[in-house]
Amino acid sequence: MVSYLTEALVAGGHDVTLFASGDSVTSADLVAVRDRSLRNHPRPCDPAVWHTIMLDEVSRRADQFDVIHFHVDCTHYPMARRCLTPCVTTLHGRLDLPDLAALHQHFAEHPVVAISNAQRRLLPQANWCATVHHGLPLALYDFNGTPQDYFAFVGRVSPEKRLDRAIEIALACNTRLRIAAKVDAADRNYFETVIRPLLNHPLIAFEGEVGDGDKNALLGNARALLFPIDWPEPFGLVMIEAMACGTPVVAYARGAVPEVMDHGVSGFVVSNQSQAIEAARSIGEIDRQACRRGFERRYVSSIMASEYVKVYESLARRRGTVKLRSVGGTDHVIRTPG
Amino acid sequence: MVSYLTEALVAGGHDVTLFASGDSVTSADLVAVRDRSLRNHPRPCDPAVWHTIMLDEVSRRADQFDVIHFHVDCTHYPMARRCLTPCVTTLHGRLDLPDLAALHQHFAEHPVVAISNAQRRLLPQANWCATVHHGLPLALYDFNGTPQDYFAFVGRVSPEKRLDRAIEIALACNTRLRIAAKVDAADRNYFETVIRPLLNHPLIAFEGEVGDGDKNALLGNARALLFPIDWPEPFGLVMIEAMACGTPVVAYARGAVPEVMDHGVSGFVVSNQSQAIEAARSIGEIDRQACRRGFERRYVSSIMASEYVKVYESLARRRGTVKLRSVGGTDHVIRTPG
Repeated sequence: MVSYLTEALVAGGHDVTLFASGDSVTSADLVAVRDRSLRNHPRPCDPAVWHTIMLDEVSRRADQFDVIHFHVDCTHYPMARRCLTPCVTTLHGRLDLPDLAALHQHFAEHPVVAISNAQRRLLPQANWCATVHHGLPLALYDFNGTPQDYFAFVGRVSPEKRLDRAIEIALACNTRLRIAAKVDAADRNYFETVIRPLLNHPLIAFEGEVGDGDKNALLGNARALLFPIDWPEPFGLVMIEAMACGTPVVAYARGAVPEVMDHGVSGFVVSNQSQAIEAARSIGEIDRQACRRGFERRYVSSIMASEYVKVYESLARRRGTVKLRSVGGTDHVIRTPG
Repeated sequence: MVSYLTEALVAGGHDVTLFASGDSVTSADLVAVRDRSLRNHPRPCDPAVWHTIMLDEVSRRADQFDVIHFHVDCTHYPMARRCLTPCVTTLHGRLDLPDLAALHQHFAEHPVVAISNAQRRLLPQANWCATVHHGLPLALYDFNGTPQDYFAFVGRVSPEKRLDRAIEIALACNTRLRIAAKVDAADRNYFETVIRPLLNHPLIAFEGEVGDGDKNALLGNARALLFPIDWPEPFGLVMIEAMACGTPVVAYARGAVPEVMDHGVSGFVVSNQSQAIEAARSIGEIDRQACRRGFERRYVSSIMASEYVKVYESLARRRGTVKLRSVGGTDHVIRTPG
């Protein structure tokens, strides 16, 4: 998401410096404190070491920018409090955790951005300055008006994602379910005990983790994406990925779902399995072109960038040029025409 | 260790502020950002949140102190670099890790203290300002001149601690081995597969984790502590705990062992199992009173505190009063008479 935002800001004429690993592909000026991302390294790394070095580099250059936008956790809050350059942080995770309430009570002045109003309501103590929905590059996913005869499930295999419900919905509709899902180490036991026994059916295809190109085809060719979650989903990125393909979504009304979905246009928002099954059976009623138009109207990365520029401008002191920075594993600087 | 240092500094007339959890027992002024230590909390906590809040509190009060002494990892390095008050960090862990070399190359000016010269040699890039050995309160352990007929093993059950070697040594001497050892989750598999099969012998008593009072009795009544480690031990606290009881140590010559031990006085330093078995058989040659005197001469917390005061004084600007701070889960301020 930081990459999509950065590219959209650069495309909008802004001057952005991205703090990230050296293997990042970006149109922004890149400041890398190490060559490869921590995730792609052959030996285990200490993330605290590299975040500390990156934070030091951000501090060192702080006066070159008008705004610093962070997408990392919270270790920068003390530095942000003392920094003359305005700082803002987008909170990407689940917020109903007691420690986060204490954190935002202590750093009560730190400006934060939510990725949904549902997420924001879970932490009313924080100094919210905006809600900015995620956005995708317009051409990242291809519209597909003629899907094949299957449903898709895309995401982690974890209890809150409720793949078991998706399987039940597909079987009730006698429709094939293609599952593109990652199993994290923490969810291995759940996968083996709860999910694996459900996979042994000719209509159920477990395809493991898929790359971006495969995801485009898998989502675009699906009659619907099933998203029967059971947790306060902060946003639910895969919903807008499906919409970008014109693929409607059958989603449970938890977290950001009612806010991200346009019921009857981008799919159906449901509250229980019988509604979900009925919605999946009726999915042909959704106009896939209207579904795609909904994506183009609300969830394109240039729209997200415009919303963030409003945030930056409200934070930055007006100085002829407006320079902005953002940190996200990652950190960037933007210079807007005056 | 931070507690021992803090108490010794206060006893030495210094004015210390300790940053730690509210359940800390201390003679220093306590600044607590939360009521209980993270370890003793009924629900899982996010340590990064609480370290961040603590670091912010330290920054806020920085100008009240002459020196800040940190015992936490590295997230304070950027703050320390920009702080007008001199900062120093004691590195307590293993240092032969590539990320730490990069860290101390980046923060090349940050003053650090080693807990042994052996530890220090593993990170020559760092800005070492001293080696200060650990120290214990003089009366923490009781001298025992008349031990019982067993050896002791105290520590974690992990591959590098080589409990298997200790068992072999005890059996070769036909001597009982009492094992006070904790099994961390990460070492559970090692314990079950390698260690548990070795415990089924009448001479071997596995007693699990023991409290401080029990450790005093267990160490003091032992004829020897077996410490047959196989890793670059940064210090090896249990060696000086044994010495404080007058209990000699049979220790492998790895890491800080040759530096902490006084071969022939506090026990024997060995390089292989036949030497270790021979040393354990000859342990009666060690004068337990001389062993205790070695502890009193080198490893008392007041000595450690004096060494640290020298470090503080070399760092602090002379301003009539010298005020010092230390952070260790924890952070303290000291004011020495001018």
